Amino acid sequence: MVRSGRRTGAGDTKQAILQAAREVFYAEGYAGATMRAIAAGAGVDPALIHHYFDNKRSLFVAAMRLPIDPQRVVQVLTGGDRARLGETLAGLFFGIWESPDADPFIAVVRSAMTHEDAAAMLRDMISEEVIGPVAAALEVDNPKLRTSLVGAHMAGLAMMRYIIRLEPLASADPDLLVEAVGPAVQRYLTEPLWQRAS
Amino acid sequence: MVRSGRRTGAGDTKQAILQAAREVFYAEGYAGATMRAIAAGAGVDPALIHHYFDNKRSLFVAAMRLPIDPQRVVQVLTGGDRARLGETLAGLFFGIWESPDADPFIAVVRSAMTHEDAAAMLRDMISEEVIGPVAAALEVDNPKLRTSLVGAHMAGLAMMRYIIRLEPLASADPDLLVEAVGPAVQRYLTEPLWQRAS
Repeated sequence: MVRSGRRTGAGDTKQAILQAAREVFYAEGYAGATMRAIAAGAGVDPALIHHYFDNKRSLFVAAMRLPIDPQRVVQVLTGGDRARLGETLAGLFFGIWESPDADPFIAVVRSAMTHEDAAAMLRDMISEEVIGPVAAALEVDNPKLRTSLVGAHMAGLAMMRYIIRLEPLASADPDLLVEAVGPAVQRYLTEPLWQRAS
Repeated sequence: MVRSGRRTGAGDTKQAILQAAREVFYAEGYAGATMRAIAAGAGVDPALIHHYFDNKRSLFVAAMRLPIDPQRVVQVLTGGDRARLGETLAGLFFGIWESPDADPFIAVVRSAMTHEDAAAMLRDMISEEVIGPVAAALEVDNPKLRTSLVGAHMAGLAMMRYIIRLEPLASADPDLLVEAVGPAVQRYLTEPLWQRAS
């Protein structure tokens, strides 16, 4: 925890806020963390946090070095061609993870694996920022279950390809993976999930 | 590490072997662990390990408290009705995770998340004991990629439903999940993966 009566510059202040944010998100979870608690942890006025970050979500994105803002995922899942949602999401997913922008986040995921509460924190963020908004916009039965099935599939792919590096998945051509995974995502999002009640 | 010149009973010996096995599997990985090293760790003769466990796989199953022998997964994936492989595997998967037999394994997975090498150990076990044999038996293109896609999907579901407990996936009826997930598994295993080359 960084506390200091005097700052040498804006960069230091921002870093102190990000460090305090990580600590508060880990300790309190996504829903429980407040901008006020993070400001207290960083030893700054809450108004200063709002100078750097619009809201809790954007502070979380920066603190956890997410390679994409969850809001962008929601935009993709609620806009665009409904018949190509699966392919679009798979393309976005592999595009992000293949880019160097994902490297810092991979490091965060690795270290988060040893934090007991990190998984709950990520889960709550996904529920609040992705599953909720997508479910509200997708006009289908069981929208939250569908979105969580997609989330589980994507999480498994990310874990096995980029973190654990299970072969041959880890070395497969990403364009071919988009083609292979897209239809599964499409079905979970918009097609009948089961025979009895669709 | 348990070392002792004298054992009070067979139960103690078996527990010492299992404890040594966990330590050697974590330290050396699945491929690198040998029955000899585990015997040395437990302070017993290698022949004694073979008295309790047929082979490294069955020792691993016991040490990690796996709720199912990977060989059983291979049997399901390589036998039975090919057109219903997805449903069969999904049914087996949710059936195991729903049973009380899975509780000790869930505890192992939680603690393994803090062992840096545990993921690599599980990955190598899955590669050697599941992906290899299944790929050799499934008469399809890209059998190992298909099996690893299924593995990634199942791992994501297990993580999100049983470990992280993402809702509403965590509370969904398991029979409905078998119906929802079965077709995705079926497609990964036996249907064309992409348009260009199937």
